[in-house]
Amino acid sequence: MRDVVEIGLGKSAQRGYHLDDVAIVPSRRTRDVDDVSTAWQLDAYQFKIPCVAHPSDATMSPETVTELGRLGGLGTLNVEGLWCRYEDPTKIIESLSTLDDDGIAATRRLQEAYAEPIKAELITERVKAIGAAGVTVAVRVSPQHTLSLAPVILDAGVDILVIQGTIVSAEHVSTSDEPLNLKEFIADLDVPVIVGGSTDYKTTLHLMRTGAAGVIVGVGADVWSTTDTVLGIRVPMATAIADAAAARRDYLDETGGRYVHLIADGDIVTSGDIAKALGCGADAVMLGEPLSRAASAPAAGAWWHSAASHPQLPRGSYGLAQPPLGPLETVLYGPSDDADGSMNLFGGLRRAMAKCGYRDIKEFQKVGLVLDRP
Amino acid sequence: MRDVVEIGLGKSAQRGYHLDDVAIVPSRRTRDVDDVSTAWQLDAYQFKIPCVAHPSDATMSPETVTELGRLGGLGTLNVEGLWCRYEDPTKIIESLSTLDDDGIAATRRLQEAYAEPIKAELITERVKAIGAAGVTVAVRVSPQHTLSLAPVILDAGVDILVIQGTIVSAEHVSTSDEPLNLKEFIADLDVPVIVGGSTDYKTTLHLMRTGAAGVIVGVGADVWSTTDTVLGIRVPMATAIADAAAARRDYLDETGGRYVHLIADGDIVTSGDIAKALGCGADAVMLGEPLSRAASAPAAGAWWHSAASHPQLPRGSYGLAQPPLGPLETVLYGPSDDADGSMNLFGGLRRAMAKCGYRDIKEFQKVGLVLDRP
Amino acid sequence: MRDVVEIGLGKSAQRGYHLDDVAIVPSRRTRDVDDVSTAWQLDAYQFKIPCVAHPSDATMSPETVTELGRLGGLGTLNVEGLWCRYEDPTKIIESLSTLDDDGIAATRRLQEAYAEPIKAELITERVKAIGAAGVTVAVRVSPQHTLSLAPVILDAGVDILVIQGTIVSAEHVSTSDEPLNLKEFIADLDVPVIVGGSTDYKTTLHLMRTGAAGVIVGVGADVWSTTDTVLGIRVPMATAIADAAAARRDYLDETGGRYVHLIADGDIVTSGDIAKALGCGADAVMLGEPLSRAASAPAAGAWWHSAASHPQLPRGSYGLAQPPLGPLETVLYGPSDDADGSMNLFGGLRRAMAKCGYRDIKEFQKVGLVLDRP
Amino acid sequence: MRDVVEIGLGKSAQRGYHLDDVAIVPSRRTRDVDDVSTAWQLDAYQFKIPCVAHPSDATMSPETVTELGRLGGLGTLNVEGLWCRYEDPTKIIESLSTLDDDGIAATRRLQEAYAEPIKAELITERVKAIGAAGVTVAVRVSPQHTLSLAPVILDAGVDILVIQGTIVSAEHVSTSDEPLNLKEFIADLDVPVIVGGSTDYKTTLHLMRTGAAGVIVGVGADVWSTTDTVLGIRVPMATAIADAAAARRDYLDETGGRYVHLIADGDIVTSGDIAKALGCGADAVMLGEPLSRAASAPAAGAWWHSAASHPQLPRGSYGLAQPPLGPLETVLYGPSDDADGSMNLFGGLRRAMAKCGYRDIKEFQKVGLVLDRP
Repeated sequence: MRDVVEIGLGKSAQRGYHLDDVAIVPSRRTRDVDDVSTAWQLDAYQFKIPCVAHPSDATMSPETVTELGRLGGLGTLNVEGLWCRYEDPTKIIESLSTLDDDGIAATRRLQEAYAEPIKAELITERVKAIGAAGVTVAVRVSPQHTLSLAPVILDAGVDILVIQGTIVSAEHVSTSDEPLNLKEFIADLDVPVIVGGSTDYKTTLHLMRTGAAGVIVGVGADVWSTTDTVLGIRVPMATAIADAAAARRDYLDETGGRYVHLIADGDIVTSGDIAKALGCGADAVMLGEPLSRAASAPAAGAWWHSAASHPQLPRGSYGLAQPPLGPLETVLYGPSDDADGSMNLFGGLRRAMAKCGYRDIKEFQKVGLVLDRP
Repeated sequence: MRDVVEIGLGKSAQRGYHLDDVAIVPSRRTRDVDDVSTAWQLDAYQFKIPCVAHPSDATMSPETVTELGRLGGLGTLNVEGLWCRYEDPTKIIESLSTLDDDGIAATRRLQEAYAEPIKAELITERVKAIGAAGVTVAVRVSPQHTLSLAPVILDAGVDILVIQGTIVSAEHVSTSDEPLNLKEFIADLDVPVIVGGSTDYKTTLHLMRTGAAGVIVGVGADVWSTTDTVLGIRVPMATAIADAAAARRDYLDETGGRYVHLIADGDIVTSGDIAKALGCGADAVMLGEPLSRAASAPAAGAWWHSAASHPQLPRGSYGLAQPPLGPLETVLYGPSDDADGSMNLFGGLRRAMAKCGYRDIKEFQKVGLVLDRP
Repeated sequence: MRDVVEIGLGKSAQRGYHLDDVAIVPSRRTRDVDDVSTAWQLDAYQFKIPCVAHPSDATMSPETVTELGRLGGLGTLNVEGLWCRYEDPTKIIESLSTLDDDGIAATRRLQEAYAEPIKAELITERVKAIGAAGVTVAVRVSPQHTLSLAPVILDAGVDILVIQGTIVSAEHVSTSDEPLNLKEFIADLDVPVIVGGSTDYKTTLHLMRTGAAGVIVGVGADVWSTTDTVLGIRVPMATAIADAAAARRDYLDETGGRYVHLIADGDIVTSGDIAKALGCGADAVMLGEPLSRAASAPAAGAWWHSAASHPQLPRGSYGLAQPPLGPLETVLYGPSDDADGSMNLFGGLRRAMAKCGYRDIKEFQKVGLVLDRP
Repeated sequence: MRDVVEIGLGKSAQRGYHLDDVAIVPSRRTRDVDDVSTAWQLDAYQFKIPCVAHPSDATMSPETVTELGRLGGLGTLNVEGLWCRYEDPTKIIESLSTLDDDGIAATRRLQEAYAEPIKAELITERVKAIGAAGVTVAVRVSPQHTLSLAPVILDAGVDILVIQGTIVSAEHVSTSDEPLNLKEFIADLDVPVIVGGSTDYKTTLHLMRTGAAGVIVGVGADVWSTTDTVLGIRVPMATAIADAAAARRDYLDETGGRYVHLIADGDIVTSGDIAKALGCGADAVMLGEPLSRAASAPAAGAWWHSAASHPQLPRGSYGLAQPPLGPLETVLYGPSDDADGSMNLFGGLRRAMAKCGYRDIKEFQKVGLVLDRP
C-alpha cells in the first residue's frame, strides 16, 4: 500500500522512489527483438522512438533538431536560448563548449552569454529553417514569456509548442502581471502543446485539464542539476511518473477518452533508465545530457541546462566536455561499443522489451518492477 | 503512522529523518516571486529574513553582528567567545583563520586560544558597541554561565538573550551547585530569551513552559560537528523540527495563544535546506558555516563551533578556510554565480516558496514533503 | 510479510534484497568443521563442492574445465566462445588478457575477437577432449543457437547441457523463426539440462516444468556486468533465490517428488557470498570472476562475460587482469593468505556451516538470516 | 513491532540494526557530569569503567594488562597469543608493528608468527606476572583449547577466565573429539567465566545457563574484521545487544535473580559508540583497536585480531600503525585534543550520560534511541 510516513508528530511525508531504486522484472515470456515496436505518436505526429530532446543549447541547434527528427525522434529548440539571442551563436557556443572549470567561473560565462536579449526575428528565422528541413518543428518557451513570444512562434509555423519551466502549474497567481492562463491560451491554439515540468498527481491532472497534448513529468534533474540543493525540490522519478500515469487514467475516464501523453524528464541517462521510465508509465522520455555525447552536438560534449544561466539563482552546473561516442544515429540505434548503456539507447530499450515479452510501449507500461536500493 | 521499530526484543527506537531525507513537493499552484514574503518577527523585533546567526567567533564579531542586523537578520555574539576574552582578538582570530591542519593541531590551537578567561568588562563593551550601531542586540551565553554572566549582559543592554548549550533541559540536576532554574530566571527577565538546543517533543514543551520566546531545535550539527561520534547523540533534523512544531501547537493550545518560535540549528547549508527546515515547521533557521563564506567573516572563511575548543572533550573539527563567495548581502540575497545553493540563500528560499504557491513562512510550514534517501 | 510497495498511485513493486543485504545468523549449536559435508549431486553426477563454473572464456578452457572437474566442481565450456571459433585461440586469449583499458577500446577488442564464426568441428573436438580427461562434460549454448548447435554437441558426447542466456523463458514468442520449445527439446534429450537465467518464481516454475534438471537463478551480475544500466534489469539475488526455492518446493509437490536444482549466478564473490546464496535456498553456485584468480585461468586474471562481446549491445565491462591468488585448488580449498574471502572459497563455506551447526547443504538452506544494509 | 521481512516466498529475515544506525535521544533532564558514575562490577571484581580489553597481542601484553587494570578497566591476555608462544616476543611484535602492507604479505607474516607452538610454562609465567602486579587477572582461551589449557591457566591463578571464539555455542557437536561441555566445565570452576561471542537471543540464553558470569555479544567486528566476507556472518550490534539484554532479563526471571553481564564486542570505536552500546543494554564494552592508539600499545599503533593469523582461513586484515594519541590514561580519561571521539573515551561516555540525565550505567541502559541511517 501507499507509503506515507509520519516524519514527526503530525507531519507526514509520502515515500518516493527514484528510477535508480527500481528495476524491471522479466515476465515468464520472451520475444524476438525484431517483433518489438518502439513507435510513438503524439497528436498527428509519428515518431520511430519515444524520444524528445531536452531544449538545451548544448545539444539542440536547428541542425540537430532536424537530425533528430529525421532519425525518428522529436527535437526541440529553446526560443529563449542562444540561437534566438545571437545572429550567429556558433562562436559563443564554441567558447562555452571548451570551459575547463565546472564551478563559479563557468556559471559566470553562461550568465554573460545569456544576458543578450532574445530577438523575435531570430525566432522566426530558426523556426522556418527547421520547418524547411521537413521535420516536425517543436520549440520550447518558458511560462513567463509564453504570452509575449507565442505570437512570433506561432506565426513562424511550429508544429508542437513546449511550455516548460522548472515547475509549472495550471494556476499561477500574480498580483502584478496578468498571468498566463494555460486553459484559455491552449484552447485558442491550433497546435498541440506539451507543458511541464510537473511533479505530482494533482498538478498533472490540472495540466491535463488545460487541454495540453502532453505533460512533462519531472524537473529535468540529472547530476548537473541543482534544483535539489537550491530549492529543496527533489523529484523521485519512479513515483512521479507512476502518479502522473494515474492522473492520465483518471483524466481519460473523466473525459471519456482523451489520452494525454507523459514525457519523463529527469534522471534518464542510460537505455536501462529509458526502459524503467516507460515501465513506470511514461509514454516518452526527454533526453538531455545523453544527446550531448553525439558527434553533432553543438557544444561538442559539454552540457548545461537552461536554468544554469539564470542571472540571480542559477540551478545547474556546467558539465565539462566529454568525447563523443559516435554519430547521433549510433547513440540512438547502435551498434554500441560502450557497455555502460550510453549508446544504442533505443536498441537497449527494444531488447529490454523483448526480454520481457512485450510488443509495444503501451504494453510495456505494465511490466513488473522490483524495488531495491543499489 | 509514526515509525517506531523494535530494534531488539523489548528495545524500541523511533525512526528519525534528516533534512536530506526529505524534499519539498510543489503544490498545484505557483506564485510570482515578488509576491512572496520572508519576513519574521520575534517578540517586538522584526526581521526581513528568518535568519539567526550561530554564535561562532568564526562568523560573528561585533561588526558582522551589526552587518547582519542591518541586512535584516539577527546576529548573535557569543559572550564566552574570543571577543569577550581578549581586548583585541583580531590577531588571535587571524592566526586561527589560517591553520592548514584540520586535526589535532588545530584543536590544540583552539583550546589554547579559548583558555584565556572571560572578562566582564569586555562583555559590556561589546554589547554596547552593537547597540550603538542601532541593530537588535542578541548575545549567547551557556547555561552553566548564565547565572554568573547574566547580570553583566543585562546591564549592558541586550535585546534578546540566547541561552545555548549543545543539549539544554528545563530541569538540570546537580548535587553540588545550585543549578539554573530556567523558569524562575526567565520570569524575572525583561528581555525575550531564546533557549536550546533541544532535540525532542517533551524537552521542547518543557522549555516553552519556562517562558522562552524561542527554542533552538538541534545541536548545530554539520559536517564539522562531532557530537555524534563523541556523545552518540545524532539529531535527525526533519523529525526534530516536526516534533518541536507539535510541541509549539500543543503549548499554544495549553496557554490559549502563546506562540513560541522554533529556530532550527543543524544540517542547514544551502537555500534548499532552509526551505526544507521551514517546510518541516521551523520559524527561522540558525546559520553557522554558511555565513563563513561572506567576505566580511572574521575568520576569513575558516569555521569552528564553540564546542570545538572544549578543554577536555572537544566536539567539532576545524574547517579549513574557504574562499569567500562575496559580500554578506550577496550571500543572503544574491545575485548568485554559484549553482550549489550556497549563495542567494534567501532568494532561493523565496523562489522555492513561489514555486509552491505560498505567500509567507507561516503558510509555507504546511508544504508537502516527499521522503527519499538520496 | 511480503514487502509490496505502491511506488506511485496504482503501480506497485515488490521489495527485493541482495545477498549483500542479508547475513547469516548462527544458531544455538556449533559443529566440528570436519563433520561438515559440502557434497552436491545433480542427476547421476556427484561433486565434492556445489560449484559450477560460469561459462566464460576468461576462466574456462578445456584444460580448466578438466581441472575443476578433477577438483570436485563442474566446469562448463561455452560452445559459442573462442575455443569453438578458433583452432588455437591461445594467442587471441593472451592478447585479450593483457588489455590495459576497461572501456570502449576493450569492448571493441572483444567484439572483434568474437566476430569469428563458430565452427562445428571445433565443438566436437573440445567436447571430446574434455570427455577424454575423464571428468563430467558440461557445455553452454545460448537459447538462440540451441536448435542448430545441439546435434553437434550431443553427438560429441556431453554429460550435461547448459542452455543459458541473460534471461530465458519457457515460452519464447517469435513471428519469424520457429522458436526453441524447451519442453519438447528437453523431453527428447538423454542428458540432463541446466537452463537459465531466471529471475522470478513464475518463470522458474515454468522452466522446471520443461523437464530441466537445474535452473540458473540470476543473470550473472557482478561489478563488471551492466545488465542493469543497459536493460534496466537488476536482480536482487537473495530474493530471487528464495523465490526460486519456493518454486522448487511447489514443483516438488506438483510432481510428487521431482527435485530441480537451483544454481545461483550473480553477486557471488567471496566464501561468505557462497554461504549466503546457499542459505537463501540455492543448491549450488555459479562462479565467474572468482575463478579468474586461479593461476591456471586462461586469461591470466582478466575477466569478461560472454555478453561483453555482443556486436550491437555489449553488456559487461572488461575486467583488467589481477594477479593470481594461487592454484585453483588453493582458491577452492585453501590454505588462504587473503583475508577478504577470495581464497579457500569452499573451506570458508564449510566453516560457516560448522559455526551454524549444520551438517550438509540441504540442512544449511534453513539457516537463519538477518537483514541489514551494510 | 519486531521487523521480520519475507525476503522471498517463504524465507524470512529479521531486520537488524547497527550501532551506527541508532543514536541517543536526550531526555527532558540534564545532570552535572560530576554526579555521574561509570562504575562496573563483575562478580567480586570492581572496575572504574565498563571496559574490557579485546585479547589482541597488538594491544595486550602483560604490561598493558596491568596498566589497564590500574586505570580501572579489565585487561585480558590471550594465552594463545605471542606472549605464550615466545619466551620474549618483543622482537616479533616489533617486526609485526612496522609492516607497510595491509594485504596478503601482512597476513603471511601473521601466519608465520603464530605458527610457533603455545608453551604451557609461558602461560604460567605470564599469568603470575600479571597477578604479581596486583590487578585482576583475566586471560582468554579459545573453546577448542579450553580443555587442554585450562589446568595450566587455573593453576597459575587467574581471577577471570575468558572463553572466546568468533562464534561460541553452549552445545558444540563433534563426532571425533569429546567436545567442551561448557555447563559441566564452568560448574567445576572456582573462577568466574566470560564466554562468547554470541549473536542472538537463544544462544545467549543457553550460554547464561552454563553458569557464565558474563557473555560476550558480537564477533569483534570492526573495519579490519572480515568475518562478514569470509563466513557471511554479520552482526548488527544494536539488535544483538538488545536481544541479549532480553535474554538477561528472562534468565534473571528464570533463576530468580542471577544477573549475567553482557560485554559488547564489535563496531565500538568512539566514545559515542560506547554510549550507544550501553544504551542498547550492554553492561560493558570490549575494546580492540581503540586501545592500539595508546602510547604503551605493544604493537605501536598497528592492529590485528587473533583470527587474522588463522593458518587456513584468516579473518581479519592487518591495520597499519597509526600514531599514538597519548598515554592510555588520556585515551580513557582525557583531556582530549582529538574531536573525533577517539580520546577521553569514558569522559565522553560520562558526558553523554550527564546530557541525558542519568546517574549510572544500569539507568542509562534505558535511554531513548532514534533510528536513522547516516
